[in-house]
Amino acid sequence: MKYAIKIAYDGRAFSGWQKQPGRTTVQESVEKALTAFCHEDVSVHGAGRTDKGVHALGQVASFELKYPLPLETIISAGNAHLPDQIRLMEAAHVDDSFHARYSALWREYVYHVWTGASCYPHIRNYVWWKRRADWDMEKVRSACRKFTGTHDFRAFCRAIECPPNAVRDIARMTVAKRGPLIRFRIRGKAFLTNMVRIMIGTTDHIAAGDCSLEFLDYLLRGAHREEGGPTAPAQGLILQKIGYDVPLWPSVGS
Amino acid sequence: MKYAIKIAYDGRAFSGWQKQPGRTTVQESVEKALTAFCHEDVSVHGAGRTDKGVHALGQVASFELKYPLPLETIISAGNAHLPDQIRLMEAAHVDDSFHARYSALWREYVYHVWTGASCYPHIRNYVWWKRRADWDMEKVRSACRKFTGTHDFRAFCRAIECPPNAVRDIARMTVAKRGPLIRFRIRGKAFLTNMVRIMIGTTDHIAAGDCSLEFLDYLLRGAHREEGGPTAPAQGLILQKIGYDVPLWPSVGS
Repeated sequence: MKYAIKIAYDGRAFSGWQKQPGRTTVQESVEKALTAFCHEDVSVHGAGRTDKGVHALGQVASFELKYPLPLETIISAGNAHLPDQIRLMEAAHVDDSFHARYSALWREYVYHVWTGASCYPHIRNYVWWKRRADWDMEKVRSACRKFTGTHDFRAFCRAIECPPNAVRDIARMTVAKRGPLIRFRIRGKAFLTNMVRIMIGTTDHIAAGDCSLEFLDYLLRGAHREEGGPTAPAQGLILQKIGYDVPLWPSVGS
Repeated sequence: MKYAIKIAYDGRAFSGWQKQPGRTTVQESVEKALTAFCHEDVSVHGAGRTDKGVHALGQVASFELKYPLPLETIISAGNAHLPDQIRLMEAAHVDDSFHARYSALWREYVYHVWTGASCYPHIRNYVWWKRRADWDMEKVRSACRKFTGTHDFRAFCRAIECPPNAVRDIARMTVAKRGPLIRFRIRGKAFLTNMVRIMIGTTDHIAAGDCSLEFLDYLLRGAHREEGGPTAPAQGLILQKIGYDVPLWPSVGS
């Protein structure tokens, strides 16, 4: 029997999603928790390989069980075996052909920038705090429009992990400002390593006047990584939602 | 020279706002921080005496300095001397007659209830998690309407701290539900000890069918504390905003 689960985590405690020897990762923590009460070795496949320090509200993972269990048991027993910083939020039965990563139609990330002189203690671990940043929001909106669409994003990929084909499609990128809080929403089929964070780091340079909008056009035609902007901090990034052809958890409207 | 400051804090780390011997409180922490760099003994007066564990986004305090300092210095040096869980968000010059507590026209609290089977790790310390609570929202809205107005709230006050006159006026109380998150906003000139939390605890009983709306009418006519509902947890409560006759920090629109 195949299952999908929706997972939320506070990225601070983990070296990212993907299993790595000698590091505490979300994937390994979830596999250990499921294995502990399912009485079989469970391997989970995640939709988004979030980096060290990146948060998730809507990561999705799939796994198979030889000995089926009720969905409520998976959530409650899973959470009982997981550290506080990881929570299973939803569970669903899925077709045998479902794979959290390969079946995903799109991934949506949110990135928060806080521009106040002080930052609320409740949110400081979930934002990039750019103290007193005075961004030109018209330029930021123009940058979002330029990023949207199909481009060669190799200037926006961690150099040693750049694949031969770095063409990706950004379905939409929006920005909203409310007082000192700036929120980006970025949706695309697939992303390169560090891609969203380098997009935000480059947008920061544009918004502050350190890089022109015309240079962004150049960057999006397949420039080298060194020509792109810096990688914005992981802690501002949240994996918000994964899109599939049918809603996985209709009860919650997502 | 007299000053007002806006203070945000994560209530978990503190035994409430007010100074008490042998306990770590917000008031004491702020006074220590200001005293450390103002080179004079500073006493601060807070607008709302939040209980142990209650959070604040918009606490306001006032204090006097014999040797004036720039507002930016108060914020930056204050924050440098404060623990991470307390942040000075704004500072302003105020009239000599200003007193954070006595000049306040109203206080607004927010209370969050989370009713999902699982709770996001990012918010779990800022909500009352009522697992799978199935509240009758029509009853909750009716309760909010009944609480609004002038009543004898002695059933909604910690018994040993109830003053002879427990008549208070709730200017407005609203509730909004978005998925599993329920948010109350409660504004009034002044509140009794634990008042908002007992109002929420009683609303929970009404919403779950354990107490009738008619009984709430009775409670609001000056019933005894034992007749009211339980005290909802401190961690769901946030002191959101204090209202004065003129905005203290016009730059941020509040």
